[in-house]
Amino acid sequence: MTFHAEAYVPDACPCPHLPATASDHVDACTIRLTPRHGRGVREARVRYALYGADGAPVVVVQGGISANRNAATRDADTGWWEPIVGDDRAIDTRGFRVLSIEWLDRTSFEALSYDELRAIGSEDQADAIAALLPELGVRHVHAFVGASYGAMVGLAFAARHPTRLRKLVVIAGAHRAHPLAIAVRNLQREIVRFAARHGDVRTGLDLARRLAMTTYRSERDFAERCGGAPEFRDGRYRFAEEGWLEAAGARFVERFDAERFLALSESIDLHAVAPESVRVPSTLIGIASDRLVPLADLCELQRRFGAPAALHVIDSRYGHDAFLKETAQIGPLIAEALATGSVQ
Amino acid sequence: MTFHAEAYVPDACPCPHLPATASDHVDACTIRLTPRHGRGVREARVRYALYGADGAPVVVVQGGISANRNAATRDADTGWWEPIVGDDRAIDTRGFRVLSIEWLDRTSFEALSYDELRAIGSEDQADAIAALLPELGVRHVHAFVGASYGAMVGLAFAARHPTRLRKLVVIAGAHRAHPLAIAVRNLQREIVRFAARHGDVRTGLDLARRLAMTTYRSERDFAERCGGAPEFRDGRYRFAEEGWLEAAGARFVERFDAERFLALSESIDLHAVAPESVRVPSTLIGIASDRLVPLADLCELQRRFGAPAALHVIDSRYGHDAFLKETAQIGPLIAEALATGSVQ
Repeated sequence: MTFHAEAYVPDACPCPHLPATASDHVDACTIRLTPRHGRGVREARVRYALYGADGAPVVVVQGGISANRNAATRDADTGWWEPIVGDDRAIDTRGFRVLSIEWLDRTSFEALSYDELRAIGSEDQADAIAALLPELGVRHVHAFVGASYGAMVGLAFAARHPTRLRKLVVIAGAHRAHPLAIAVRNLQREIVRFAARHGDVRTGLDLARRLAMTTYRSERDFAERCGGAPEFRDGRYRFAEEGWLEAAGARFVERFDAERFLALSESIDLHAVAPESVRVPSTLIGIASDRLVPLADLCELQRRFGAPAALHVIDSRYGHDAFLKETAQIGPLIAEALATGSVQ
Repeated sequence: MTFHAEAYVPDACPCPHLPATASDHVDACTIRLTPRHGRGVREARVRYALYGADGAPVVVVQGGISANRNAATRDADTGWWEPIVGDDRAIDTRGFRVLSIEWLDRTSFEALSYDELRAIGSEDQADAIAALLPELGVRHVHAFVGASYGAMVGLAFAARHPTRLRKLVVIAGAHRAHPLAIAVRNLQREIVRFAARHGDVRTGLDLARRLAMTTYRSERDFAERCGGAPEFRDGRYRFAEEGWLEAAGARFVERFDAERFLALSESIDLHAVAPESVRVPSTLIGIASDRLVPLADLCELQRRFGAPAALHVIDSRYGHDAFLKETAQIGPLIAEALATGSVQ
């Protein structure tokens, strides 16, 4: 397995102490943190994007493990959460300043052995964001809006840096990964490692992504999307379900790295935040059809939460992916949470 | 991939036309059928077990793709459905004669190319049982009790041989495989084929079985079974979920063949019986927590059924595997269905 081309480069960091009111910038900054599953203080390179209204309150926006720092569409880059983040959207870049980081992986750190840095914790992502804030001249974060893995990191951020954060919005994530989801993700990683041992890590990553896709969507979505008689081709039957998953796997392999996938997938499974330790007023959004993050886990999170937390439940055919698909339902809930004094 | 040691041996078939009243026997018989996904009439070798009360009505009992012909415990062999089949059990071998076959796979047929026999259909299993009956001197089957893949074959049997069958009991199976389950099973087969290409089919079968296990159990079962902090060992964290799945995968590889797995897994996905075409009074048993065979599919089966069909729903922590685990709930429903005149 190979590491990213763009790896840790500590001396390239300007860390310009840019005020949060400066114009848009997409940059990288070296910060210091004590990894949850490591030893001692370490430097890490954090790649981030900061944009939106000058001088406006800052909203941190983080998505799933495969999301990047471009939540809004800007210039030529289509944002992964375009319907939610942008001018006049739920997270309105005319009224807020948006900060997103690229998730840390092992390449974000100076070269460390697996004994020095056993894994990347959701706490490390939270601490990296917290360490980045003063470098950007940001004292307080108005809200942290996190979906999927981003929801886990948001919970870790709120638990560890409560004085920095006014509001938390948690979407399709909970205080822990569900054991069944851990089992399936662990198999995804086993497949990648097995393929790597046989010198074909790309096919392993492809199969792992296809498997992940079966957990991102609901039964209903598969039933409505698929159908038609299987077709006999090249010595076996091909099912309608295969084509869609094959395409998803192939796209993922083109844009993602196996080592990064292993680290972030494992980070989800290691995530553990005591709900009682989160003392920031929050809005929780769960998806009834989510097979990856069962609604029951959001209910438990809400019950045990250390601050007022309103749980909203979304009905969707899309399962976990509803956080990307049901923006018409999710947008107003986020906008309401961001509006001053409206945390319920 | 290698075929079974015990392959098709047509001239070894005595086909003794044993009366159904004869004593217990475990044997094999060559029958003729026209494969659903093949060309022309073919011979197939059917391995079966027939035991129970002399002269009693015959009940066909069939389980999942990994079940064998030993449903009851007899001699040294522990039956796969011991709590249900045996003396004084729900399928009482003091009052019934039980017939089960080993599922056909490609080794059951004379050597055929993939063009001559593209796949094994659930219809072929049903037709093999139907063809076996006269050889055993059985005119009518009192009941066909099928669970999982056995339920699919039972539906095919009832649709194709209605005059042979008085009652059908369908447990955790439906008129078609659900598209999401097809997607996950297809990935299991992709993993086996990928591993075979790299000369390590055993690991592929192991991983495929582990993946299957994540669909056989419910969220609740995983949540109750697993837990505890992950442990760092040999360069990565090990999760509590892994040990159980690893053991299940290892056991499966010892007793199952990759080629047989591919054929039977595909056979599930190819299964399609129009519910309207089933005109035998039936008892349907669904499991609310089943992630592989959604209860909604049994509801649709019941709605569209071509004869009276009572749907019973079982509540269980075990998901699909409830057909093996909730014998105290399922047993009385089967016994009631077998009792004369009690089909609802």
